Amino acid sequence: MRFLVMNGPNINLLGLREPGIYGSESYADLLQKIEAHAKAIGVETGFFQSNHEGALVDAIQAARGEYDGIVINPAAYTHTSIAILDALKAVALPAVEVHISDVREREEFRRISYAGMACEASFIGLGFDGYLRGLDFLKERLASGKKA
Amino acid sequence: MRFLVMNGPNINLLGLREPGIYGSESYADLLQKIEAHAKAIGVETGFFQSNHEGALVDAIQAARGEYDGIVINPAAYTHTSIAILDALKAVALPAVEVHISDVREREEFRRISYAGMACEASFIGLGFDGYLRGLDFLKERLASGKKA
Amino acid sequence: MRFLVMNGPNINLLGLREPGIYGSESYADLLQKIEAHAKAIGVETGFFQSNHEGALVDAIQAARGEYDGIVINPAAYTHTSIAILDALKAVALPAVEVHISDVREREEFRRISYAGMACEASFIGLGFDGYLRGLDFLKERLASGKKA
Amino acid sequence: MRFLVMNGPNINLLGLREPGIYGSESYADLLQKIEAHAKAIGVETGFFQSNHEGALVDAIQAARGEYDGIVINPAAYTHTSIAILDALKAVALPAVEVHISDVREREEFRRISYAGMACEASFIGLGFDGYLRGLDFLKERLASGKKA
Amino acid sequence: MRFLVMNGPNINLLGLREPGIYGSESYADLLQKIEAHAKAIGVETGFFQSNHEGALVDAIQAARGEYDGIVINPAAYTHTSIAILDALKAVALPAVEVHISDVREREEFRRISYAGMACEASFIGLGFDGYLRGLDFLKERLASGKKA
Amino acid sequence: MRFLVMNGPNINLLGLREPGIYGSESYADLLQKIEAHAKAIGVETGFFQSNHEGALVDAIQAARGEYDGIVINPAAYTHTSIAILDALKAVALPAVEVHISDVREREEFRRISYAGMACEASFIGLGFDGYLRGLDFLKERLASGKKA
Amino acid sequence: MRFLVMNGPNINLLGLREPGIYGSESYADLLQKIEAHAKAIGVETGFFQSNHEGALVDAIQAARGEYDGIVINPAAYTHTSIAILDALKAVALPAVEVHISDVREREEFRRISYAGMACEASFIGLGFDGYLRGLDFLKERLASGKKA
Amino acid sequence: MRFLVMNGPNINLLGLREPGIYGSESYADLLQKIEAHAKAIGVETGFFQSNHEGALVDAIQAARGEYDGIVINPAAYTHTSIAILDALKAVALPAVEVHISDVREREEFRRISYAGMACEASFIGLGFDGYLRGLDFLKERLASGKKA
Amino acid sequence: MRFLVMNGPNINLLGLREPGIYGSESYADLLQKIEAHAKAIGVETGFFQSNHEGALVDAIQAARGEYDGIVINPAAYTHTSIAILDALKAVALPAVEVHISDVREREEFRRISYAGMACEASFIGLGFDGYLRGLDFLKERLASGKKA
Amino acid sequence: MRFLVMNGPNINLLGLREPGIYGSESYADLLQKIEAHAKAIGVETGFFQSNHEGALVDAIQAARGEYDGIVINPAAYTHTSIAILDALKAVALPAVEVHISDVREREEFRRISYAGMACEASFIGLGFDGYLRGLDFLKERLASGKKA
Amino acid sequence: MRFLVMNGPNINLLGLREPGIYGSESYADLLQKIEAHAKAIGVETGFFQSNHEGALVDAIQAARGEYDGIVINPAAYTHTSIAILDALKAVALPAVEVHISDVREREEFRRISYAGMACEASFIGLGFDGYLRGLDFLKERLASGKKA
Amino acid sequence: MRFLVMNGPNINLLGLREPGIYGSESYADLLQKIEAHAKAIGVETGFFQSNHEGALVDAIQAARGEYDGIVINPAAYTHTSIAILDALKAVALPAVEVHISDVREREEFRRISYAGMACEASFIGLGFDGYLRGLDFLKERLASGKKA
Repeated sequence: MRFLVMNGPNINLLGLREPGIYGSESYADLLQKIEAHAKAIGVETGFFQSNHEGALVDAIQAARGEYDGIVINPAAYTHTSIAILDALKAVALPAVEVHISDVREREEFRRISYAGMACEASFIGLGFDGYLRGLDFLKERLASGKKA
Repeated sequence: MRFLVMNGPNINLLGLREPGIYGSESYADLLQKIEAHAKAIGVETGFFQSNHEGALVDAIQAARGEYDGIVINPAAYTHTSIAILDALKAVALPAVEVHISDVREREEFRRISYAGMACEASFIGLGFDGYLRGLDFLKERLASGKKA
Repeated sequence: MRFLVMNGPNINLLGLREPGIYGSESYADLLQKIEAHAKAIGVETGFFQSNHEGALVDAIQAARGEYDGIVINPAAYTHTSIAILDALKAVALPAVEVHISDVREREEFRRISYAGMACEASFIGLGFDGYLRGLDFLKERLASGKKA
Repeated sequence: MRFLVMNGPNINLLGLREPGIYGSESYADLLQKIEAHAKAIGVETGFFQSNHEGALVDAIQAARGEYDGIVINPAAYTHTSIAILDALKAVALPAVEVHISDVREREEFRRISYAGMACEASFIGLGFDGYLRGLDFLKERLASGKKA
Repeated sequence: MRFLVMNGPNINLLGLREPGIYGSESYADLLQKIEAHAKAIGVETGFFQSNHEGALVDAIQAARGEYDGIVINPAAYTHTSIAILDALKAVALPAVEVHISDVREREEFRRISYAGMACEASFIGLGFDGYLRGLDFLKERLASGKKA
Repeated sequence: MRFLVMNGPNINLLGLREPGIYGSESYADLLQKIEAHAKAIGVETGFFQSNHEGALVDAIQAARGEYDGIVINPAAYTHTSIAILDALKAVALPAVEVHISDVREREEFRRISYAGMACEASFIGLGFDGYLRGLDFLKERLASGKKA
Repeated sequence: MRFLVMNGPNINLLGLREPGIYGSESYADLLQKIEAHAKAIGVETGFFQSNHEGALVDAIQAARGEYDGIVINPAAYTHTSIAILDALKAVALPAVEVHISDVREREEFRRISYAGMACEASFIGLGFDGYLRGLDFLKERLASGKKA
Repeated sequence: MRFLVMNGPNINLLGLREPGIYGSESYADLLQKIEAHAKAIGVETGFFQSNHEGALVDAIQAARGEYDGIVINPAAYTHTSIAILDALKAVALPAVEVHISDVREREEFRRISYAGMACEASFIGLGFDGYLRGLDFLKERLASGKKA
Repeated sequence: MRFLVMNGPNINLLGLREPGIYGSESYADLLQKIEAHAKAIGVETGFFQSNHEGALVDAIQAARGEYDGIVINPAAYTHTSIAILDALKAVALPAVEVHISDVREREEFRRISYAGMACEASFIGLGFDGYLRGLDFLKERLASGKKA
Repeated sequence: MRFLVMNGPNINLLGLREPGIYGSESYADLLQKIEAHAKAIGVETGFFQSNHEGALVDAIQAARGEYDGIVINPAAYTHTSIAILDALKAVALPAVEVHISDVREREEFRRISYAGMACEASFIGLGFDGYLRGLDFLKERLASGKKA
Repeated sequence: MRFLVMNGPNINLLGLREPGIYGSESYADLLQKIEAHAKAIGVETGFFQSNHEGALVDAIQAARGEYDGIVINPAAYTHTSIAILDALKAVALPAVEVHISDVREREEFRRISYAGMACEASFIGLGFDGYLRGLDFLKERLASGKKA
Repeated sequence: MRFLVMNGPNINLLGLREPGIYGSESYADLLQKIEAHAKAIGVETGFFQSNHEGALVDAIQAARGEYDGIVINPAAYTHTSIAILDALKAVALPAVEVHISDVREREEFRRISYAGMACEASFIGLGFDGYLRGLDFLKERLASGKKA
C-alpha cells in the first residue's frame, strides 16, 4: 500500500511560523515522524508540498495509479480552493484531511473546508499525530475494503 | 489513568438508527470495542450515555476528581448545547470530540459544534474508531504533559 | 392500533397559560377529548407529557414495539430540539406534528420546526382538534399501508 | 353552508405532474373526492382553479356573499403572492390553507406562505385528505361560531 | 394633457377592505374625487384597475401614445412585480407612485417598491389626496418640460 | 396655523452641492418659495436649518406650543438619527417628511428613514415642491381634524 | 419536430424598450429571424408572447402533445415566477432558457432564475441568436435521444 | 413575601469555574449572601439550581401559589431555552433576570436572552449583588403594586 | 465621592414623552429622586443632559478629575454613538449604563448598545430606580476598590 | 481569425471525472470535436489547459496580439478567481464563457461566476457543444463588428 | 496653498486615550509635528478638532474659499456620519482620510468608512505620519493639477 | 536596508489595463520610479511580479534573510488569498500594503483585504506614489526600531 502525504502552503516553514499556533518542530521533523510510522505499520509513503494551488491539483491527479490513498493538509487552500476539492473527487482515491491546530477556533474565514467535502475522515487539533492517524485510517480502510 | 467516554442522545440506538449513516453495529458493540482497546493500551474507562442534556452536564461535573480526561460524542446536543460547552470549560479536564459520521456533510444546522470549542482535538468520520483514537490521544497527551 | 400522544413543555398548564393564545380548556380536558375520539374511531392511545427534552427523547425511543405511531406537539422544543428530530427518525414510526395555535404568526424564532422534518403531516392552528385529526390520519395511513 | 375550494397553478395537472411528489390521482379525482365528502357532511362546495394570480384574486373577491368560507391551495403562488394574501384579508371570510405535500421539506423558496398569514388553520402533507379536513374545520368553525 | 390613473389588486374593494388601514371611502368615491380634481386643474384622466399583474402591464404598454403620464398605485404588486417596473421603463412615460397608507410601517415584505424605481416622485400616506397630488405633479412637470 | 419647516445638514448649500442630484436653486430660493406658498394658503411658517443632529432635536422640542405641525427634511440624518425620531414622537405634533430627490435610488445606506417612522406622510422626489405639498397636507389635516 | 418559442412580459416592445440594453430590432424582426432559421434547420415553430404569468403557465401546459420542446425567455418572470418553473417541470418537455442581454450584470434582483432550474441549457447574452441556438440545441438533443 | 431564586447549569460550580470571569466565591457563598440580604429586607427566599432545562421549567411551574416572584439566572439556558421563556410567561409571576458577568461582551451566541423577554428588569454585570438588587426590585414592585 | 449622572436626547421631556413607555414623572422629578438618594448614601452628584452627541462627549471628557464615576443613560445615542463609547473608554472612569424601560423589547435597531461596551454594569427596565442602583453600585465598587 | 480555447482545472480528466455530471468523453475527444468544428467554419484555434490559476492568467495575457477572441471554461476557478476576471478585462479581447453542465443546479458556492463578468455571452449546460457555439458566436461577433 | 487638518471626537485626548492603540504622544504634539512639516514643504495649515458631528460639518462647509484641500481623521464619526460624507462631497475640495491605527483590525463596526467615500486617498496605520503624508499628497495633487 | 517590492496579477499590464482606473503609465515606468526613489532615500530594492499566487508565496518565503521588509500590492489576490496572508505572518518581516486606486469604491468583493491583516500600514488611492511612501515608511520604521 502506498499513500501520498500532501501539504499545502507555508507548511514547509513549520517551526519557523507562528510557533504559538503550530509548534516548534520543523517540516523535516514532520516527514521523519511520518516515515518512521509508515515503516512501523508497513505502508509506503510519498511526500508533496507546494505553495501553488495548481501544483497540488497536478499532484492529486498524478496520484491516480501511483497511490492507494491521500493524506492531505491543504493549509490555507483548505478554505479557498474548489479546484482541490474537484481534483480529489475526480481521482476518487480515499482521502483524509489533517489540520495540525484546531482551525475552527481561529478567524471566521478559516471555518469552511472545501477539501473536507471530498474526505472520508478528519483529524483536527492533534499536531503531527494527525498525519499518523490518517495513515492508520487509510490502511485499515483499504484492508477492510469498506468505507467508514 | 481513567477516562470518561460520554455519548449523547440516541447513540444508545446505534445499529437501529439510520444504518445508512451510522452503521449496523450496536451501542453494546461500541462499548465492547472501546473497553478492549482501553485494556490494550492500559487505561481505565467509565461510560455514560443519556438523552438528557442536563444529565450530561451533571456527569461532566461529576468527572472532576474521578477521571483524567473526557471523550465525548454529544450527538444532537453538539449543535444546540451551550450548557455542555460551559460544563467542559468549568471542569477543565482535557477533552476530545468524536463524531461517527462526517456531520459537516449533512444539514446546515449540524455544522456548528459548541462542545468542540472546549475540546483539544476532533475525530470526525472514523466510525467507532474515533473513540479509540480519542483514548490514544488523551493517554499520550497526559503522558507527555503538554497540550497538542 | 396503538398511538402515543406526546406533549412538550408547559402544555400541562393549558387553560392557565396565555388563554388569549391557547384557549381556556385544561390539559385534562384535552386528554379526555382525545380519549373519547380514540374510542370512537377504535384505536388505543397512550399519553406522555414532559417539560424535559431528554424525557421526550426517552419516551419516543420507548415507543418502539409499543405503539404504531406518534402524535406529537413538541411545544417550545419544536424550535430548538434536534435530539427529538433524531429520536423520531431513529424509531422510524409514522409521526404527525400538531400545533394548537398558528406558531408561524408569532415570533421569528418560532418559525422553524425540527420535529416537523421527521413528520408526515402537520396540523396547525386547529386547537385541540389537531390531535384528533392526527389520530385519524395515522389510522388511515396504517390501514391503507402507504405514505400520504 | 357553502364553501369555495380554490386551487392555484398546475394543480389541474395532478397525476401528470411529478407523481413522486404529488401522487398519481388526477384533478378530477380530487374534485370527486371533495364533492363526495361535502355531501357526506352536508355542505355545498364550489370549485375554482386557475394558473392566473389575478384570476384567483378575482375569485376570492367574488366569494363575498356567495360563500361562507374558503379552502385554498395556492400552489406556487403560496410563496410569491401578496395580492392573494391581501384579497383573503379584504373579504374577511374564514379560510384554511392546504398543501398536498410537505412543502417545508423542499426548496428554501417554498418555505414562506403569504396566504397562510390570512388563514386560521393549515393542513400540510395529508394528500387529498387535507381538503376534506379543511371543509370539516370550516363547518365546525362556523357551527360553533368561534375562532379556533 | 391626458393621464392614466392605475390601481392594482384589491383597490376596487376600498371601503370594504381593512378600513382601519385604508379608510372607509369606496373605490367609486376615489374615482369621483380624482375626476373632480382633474377637471379643476384642466387635465383629462383615464382609469384602470385590475387584480391581474399582466393586465396592468398590458395597460401600461397601451398607454403609449394615448396618455402623457401615469399615476400608479400598484398595491400588492408594488413589492413583487418586476414586470410592471420593466413596463414603466419600456414606455418611458413620466410616472408617479401613490400609496394610500404608509406601507413602510407595515410588514417587512412591503418595504421594497419595484415600480418606484421607474417613478419620478412618490406620495406616501396621504390617503386619496396622493392621487390628486400626483396629477398636479405630472401637469406641472409636463408644463415646465423638465424633470423634477 | 403655524408650521415649522426644518432642514438637516448641507441643505444650506443647495445650488452649490451636487447640482446633478439636488438642482441649481439655492437654500434662499427654497425659503422664498415656501414663504410665498404659505402666504398663498394662509398659514405661517418658521424655518430652521442646522448641521447639528442635537440642534434639530432641540428645535423639534421647542416647537411644542409654538407650532401646529412640522415639515422636515432631515437630509443625511434621515438614515442615522434615532434621536430625531424619538423627538418627533415625544412632541407628538403632526409631521411630514420631504426628500428633494428620490433617495431610494441612491446608495443602499440611504434606504432607511428613521424620521419617516414618526411622520404621517412622505413626499419623495418632487424637488422644492415637496415642501409646499407638505404644508398643504398639514393645513388640510388640521382643518379636517382627522389623520390621513 | 415542433418547438414552442415563448416570450414573457415586455418582449413585445423590443426595439422600443431601452435600446441600449435590448438592441433596436423589433419583436416582429425576432419572429422573422426565428422562423427563417427554423425553416433552414427543418423544424416547425409556434410562438407565444404574453405579459401575463398565468397565460404563460397555460401555454406551457397546452404545449404537452403539441410540441416537442420549449425555448423560453421569461423576461421579468424569470426572477419571480415559481409557477412557470412548476409548469415546466409538470409538462416535462425538454426546455432551454434564453436571455437577450446578460442579466447577471444588472440589478441584484435579476440574478436568480426560477425557470432556469427546469431548463437543460441556457443561452445568455447572445442577442436574438440565443433563440436560434436554442432551437439547434433542442433539435440535436431530440435527434440524439439523450440529455446533454 | 416569598421569592424563588433560581440558577441554571454550572452555577453550582461557582468559584471553581473560570474565576477570571465569574469570581472566586462559591455557590454556597452566594446562597448565604442572598439569605442574609433577604432577612435584612424582610422577605423569604427559596432556592433552586439545576443543570436540567426541564427541571427549571418544572420548578417555575411549581412556583405558582408558592412564591410571589422569581429571580432567575438561567446561565447557558438564557440563550437556548424557549421552554423557560414559555414557563415564565405561563405562570405569570413577576420575574427579574440576573447575569453575574456582562454576557454581552462575550461570544456572539451569548447575546440573545429568551428568558429576558419574560422579565421586568435585568441586572447585568453586578456580580453576586445582582441577585440582591433583584430581590429589592421585586419587593418594591409588589409593595407598590405597579409594574416598573 | 462625586458621580456624574448623564442623560441623552429627549430625557428632558420625561413625563411628556410616550408615557406608556417612559412613565408620567418628569425629568425634574428624576433629578430630585437621584439627589435625595445620593444624600442618603453620602455621595455627591452632578447632572448633565443634552440632545447633542458631541456635548455628551465633551461632558464625559470634562468628567476626568472632577468625578469618580459616571451613571449614563444615553437614550437614542445608545444605539448609534461610537463617539460616546470611545469617550467613556478614553477617560477610563468606572461607568454604569441605565435604561428606564427594557429597550430589548422594542424595535430591532434599539438592540445594540455601544455605550454598554464601556460600562461595568447595566440596569435595564427598573424605571427611575435604575439610576439609584447605579449610584449604589459605583459607591460600593469604589469603596471595595475592585471591579465587579 | 484565431481563437484561444481555454480550460481550467481538472478538465483534462474529462471522461474519468464524475461521469454522471460531466459525461464519458475525454479531453482529447473535446479538442478533436472543437478542431473539426473550427475547420468547418473556417477559423483557427489554439488550446490551453492548466490546473494553475496563474498559468491561466499568463495565457490570457499572452493572447493579446495572438488571438482575436477567447472561449473559456474556467472550471473551479469560475467561482474563486478575481485574477482571471481582471486578466480578461485587461486584455480586452471578446470572450465567451462555457460550462459543460448547469453549474447553477449544484452547490451554492458554484453560483457566482467572476469570469462571466468579463464575457459577452454564456453557454451553460450544452455539454461539449457549448465550445462550438462559443466559436460560432465569436466569429459572427467579429465579422459583424458589433457587440451582441 | 492652505490645507485644513480636521480631527474628530476624542482625538483631543491623544496620549491619554488607550495608549496601547493610539500611542503616548498628545494632541499638541500632533499639531506641532504637522505644523513643522507644513512649514518644511511650504504650505499653510489650519486646524479644527471637535467632538460634535455638526461642528465638523460646519467646518467643512466653511473651508470652501478658505482652503485648497482637507486632511481629515473623522475618528468615531468615520463609521457613523453620512452628514460628513455629504459635506465633503458638497464642498468638492480634494480630501484625504487619515487613521492613526489600522481600524480594519478592530471591531466589525469600525470597518466601514463613510468619509472615505469622498476622499481621494487613505493613509491607514502610519501613526502621526499619516497626516504629514496627507499634506504631501494634497500638495503634489494640486501642483500637478490632476487626480491621483 | 533592502526591501522587496512585490506585485500581484496583471500589474505587469499597467498602462494597457483599464487606464481609466489604473492610469496610463506602464509597469516599467513604475519600477523606474521606485528605483529612483529608493536611490534617493538610500535603500536597496528587489522586484517581483507574478500572476501565480503560489509564486508570490514562494517569493515571500524566500525574502527571509534577504530583505528587511516588504512592500506588496497583491492586486486580485488581495481579496482571495489566505495563503499570502499566512506567508507574510510566517516570515514575520515588516510589510506594507499598496493599492494604486481606491479599491473600496469598486465592487463589493474587492472590499476585504487578507494581506492587509498582516501589514502594518496601508496606502490606498495614491497611484504609483503609494509604493514610494511604503518604502519611506519601512525605512523610518526600521531606523526607529519601533512599530507604528
